[in-house]
Amino acid sequence: MADISTCPSLTRTSVQEAAHRIKGKVHRTPVLSSSYVDSIASSPQTTAALKGTPWEGQKPSRPRIHILFKCENLQKIGAFKPRGAFNAMLRYLEEQKAQGNDSTRQEIPVRFISHSSGGSLAAKELGCPAHVVMPSISMPAKIAATKGYGATVHFSGPTPPERLAVVDRLMSEPGYRNVFIPPYDHPDTLLGQGTLGLELQEQAVELLPDNRRLHGIIAPCGGGGMLSGVALSCQGTGIKVFGAEPSFEGADDCRRGLLAGHRVKQVRSLTIADGLRTPVGEIPWKIISNPDNVQGVFSVTEDQIRSALEIVLQRMKIVIEPSSAVPLAVVLYNEDFRRLIETQCDDNTFNLGLVISGGNVDVRKLAELVG
Amino acid sequence: MADISTCPSLTRTSVQEAAHRIKGKVHRTPVLSSSYVDSIASSPQTTAALKGTPWEGQKPSRPRIHILFKCENLQKIGAFKPRGAFNAMLRYLEEQKAQGNDSTRQEIPVRFISHSSGGSLAAKELGCPAHVVMPSISMPAKIAATKGYGATVHFSGPTPPERLAVVDRLMSEPGYRNVFIPPYDHPDTLLGQGTLGLELQEQAVELLPDNRRLHGIIAPCGGGGMLSGVALSCQGTGIKVFGAEPSFEGADDCRRGLLAGHRVKQVRSLTIADGLRTPVGEIPWKIISNPDNVQGVFSVTEDQIRSALEIVLQRMKIVIEPSSAVPLAVVLYNEDFRRLIETQCDDNTFNLGLVISGGNVDVRKLAELVG
Repeated sequence: MADISTCPSLTRTSVQEAAHRIKGKVHRTPVLSSSYVDSIASSPQTTAALKGTPWEGQKPSRPRIHILFKCENLQKIGAFKPRGAFNAMLRYLEEQKAQGNDSTRQEIPVRFISHSSGGSLAAKELGCPAHVVMPSISMPAKIAATKGYGATVHFSGPTPPERLAVVDRLMSEPGYRNVFIPPYDHPDTLLGQGTLGLELQEQAVELLPDNRRLHGIIAPCGGGGMLSGVALSCQGTGIKVFGAEPSFEGADDCRRGLLAGHRVKQVRSLTIADGLRTPVGEIPWKIISNPDNVQGVFSVTEDQIRSALEIVLQRMKIVIEPSSAVPLAVVLYNEDFRRLIETQCDDNTFNLGLVISGGNVDVRKLAELVG
Repeated sequence: MADISTCPSLTRTSVQEAAHRIKGKVHRTPVLSSSYVDSIASSPQTTAALKGTPWEGQKPSRPRIHILFKCENLQKIGAFKPRGAFNAMLRYLEEQKAQGNDSTRQEIPVRFISHSSGGSLAAKELGCPAHVVMPSISMPAKIAATKGYGATVHFSGPTPPERLAVVDRLMSEPGYRNVFIPPYDHPDTLLGQGTLGLELQEQAVELLPDNRRLHGIIAPCGGGGMLSGVALSCQGTGIKVFGAEPSFEGADDCRRGLLAGHRVKQVRSLTIADGLRTPVGEIPWKIISNPDNVQGVFSVTEDQIRSALEIVLQRMKIVIEPSSAVPLAVVLYNEDFRRLIETQCDDNTFNLGLVISGGNVDVRKLAELVG
């Protein structure tokens, strides 16, 4: 990995540089909208629906919301991850070249070690060997896809320490320059992931009528790399940024950390939003916990996630993983969020970008989830 | 409906006029591609896979194919149908206005009678009442969506004569100018549906590298309105057009009709590709049976449709109905089609537009289908 001391600053300009660096390597994913989803997002919840929630007895809020869905499920490998992997690997190779260590001529070959099929794809396209460490309980389709991109897959136990142990072993193997690509807790990774925020801003200009602008973006928050990258991509634009988490078994570590004033470092949740079980990393936390960058993080229940998931499948006709339904669940069911949007509407519709982070899930699993 | 004798000619120019007429009423749906799907489409089938097929013992063909998926499942109401409905209704209203019967001032109000939620949506947006005749066995989600667009839904039995009887009853109800919008067998409908072909041609120019062009388009064929409209949209462009049908229980009526030299008027098939159970209509048949318009119609088995369906769900991350998997099944598994493409490749990759017609299916049903 590129030396962290030489990494670009955590700014919008650095996200723009990352976008320039990875241009042509990733899809410019489509932005979709749905008048049906807008209509339910813009209808007040019933008082019955608020029963048993923290907002029981309160008057339902009345925001008016138009959602622009940024479809990273339609990205290569079915998720936003190649953005960060390409940026991190290209930065490493650039630095090596600048130092005279051109990887293609070097006797000791580079190999990239990562946790995702995004890393596998990026390494393959850059002509370097890829080693991917995955829990042995990963979806067979995901394992097959990762191997399909040419990676050597190494299996680990399901917990972060177990994965780390396998990474450590690979990193110490001789004969290679072993380069680990962190999935979220590194500037190069999160700056690359933030490029989806820039794209969404450009696409909003193309899609919204002349006198309208994008007011905010909501994105899921797991390790926080993507959310923090998106937040950087919005610096100085006036676009508000929000995070979305599942509340089940304390998976809302970022929200709780913000309340407590310090990062929550451990989470043990089996939320159905399995991409969001990870606690927020150290560098993403620094960005997200600055209220100039992220205006708030909101959480939802498992049932609310299931309901939003079914709406997306049924009405938007796209396959998404449960984690990607979390932001829509916040928009539809979290009254704190909805009230905040209502106060910012000024009689206008609030144009909200919503990041669909990925679609790597088995259709049989989806059918189970929506019952 | 606009008088058929005053309908525009069945030409590319008329499709362009329809596109102009409905501009802004429908989504310009995204075009997606997948390097994974391209790689399997461009790999020869195994001799084992050809066992038990008409091509057993033959040398597998070796076409090289790049597919551009035109995603009408991401169209309003989840299918291409509003294109035809908007064009037909707008043409009717234009003609009435030209004759001095401005519908908004007339004492006898217009009401549009159709078979699809596309008709419901279009009528609503044009400010006219919509009545939709659907089989009572239709998916609850589809019925709810149709009602959601404001239509009055009338139920019928599942067969075409039973549906027609309900339409006839509504058409004879007094107090209205009752206007039936045929789902496929009318110039205004098929010209509107063909607008997706024009869009795909424009998008191919945007997406393909400079010196590359779109070589062909393959679309599913049920009533044949969309396929024939797409064929008209390609007239004079050099783009080849192909149809795709399920073979189960004779649902490949168009293919069989072309072989026999006359239209097959009746089909009784329960193919899983339920949108393609209808026999080709009279006007679409005139267009499709002209080899200058459509170069061939190819059929596939239920298992091949299921397999293509699973690939799209798993790798493309979009929800499609079984009918929409039929063209991809042809591309992957029909050796007659694959050999034809191979002969037209001239060492180059064949750039093939593929119409994903819709995504109106329940996710539980999809899970069942892919087993």
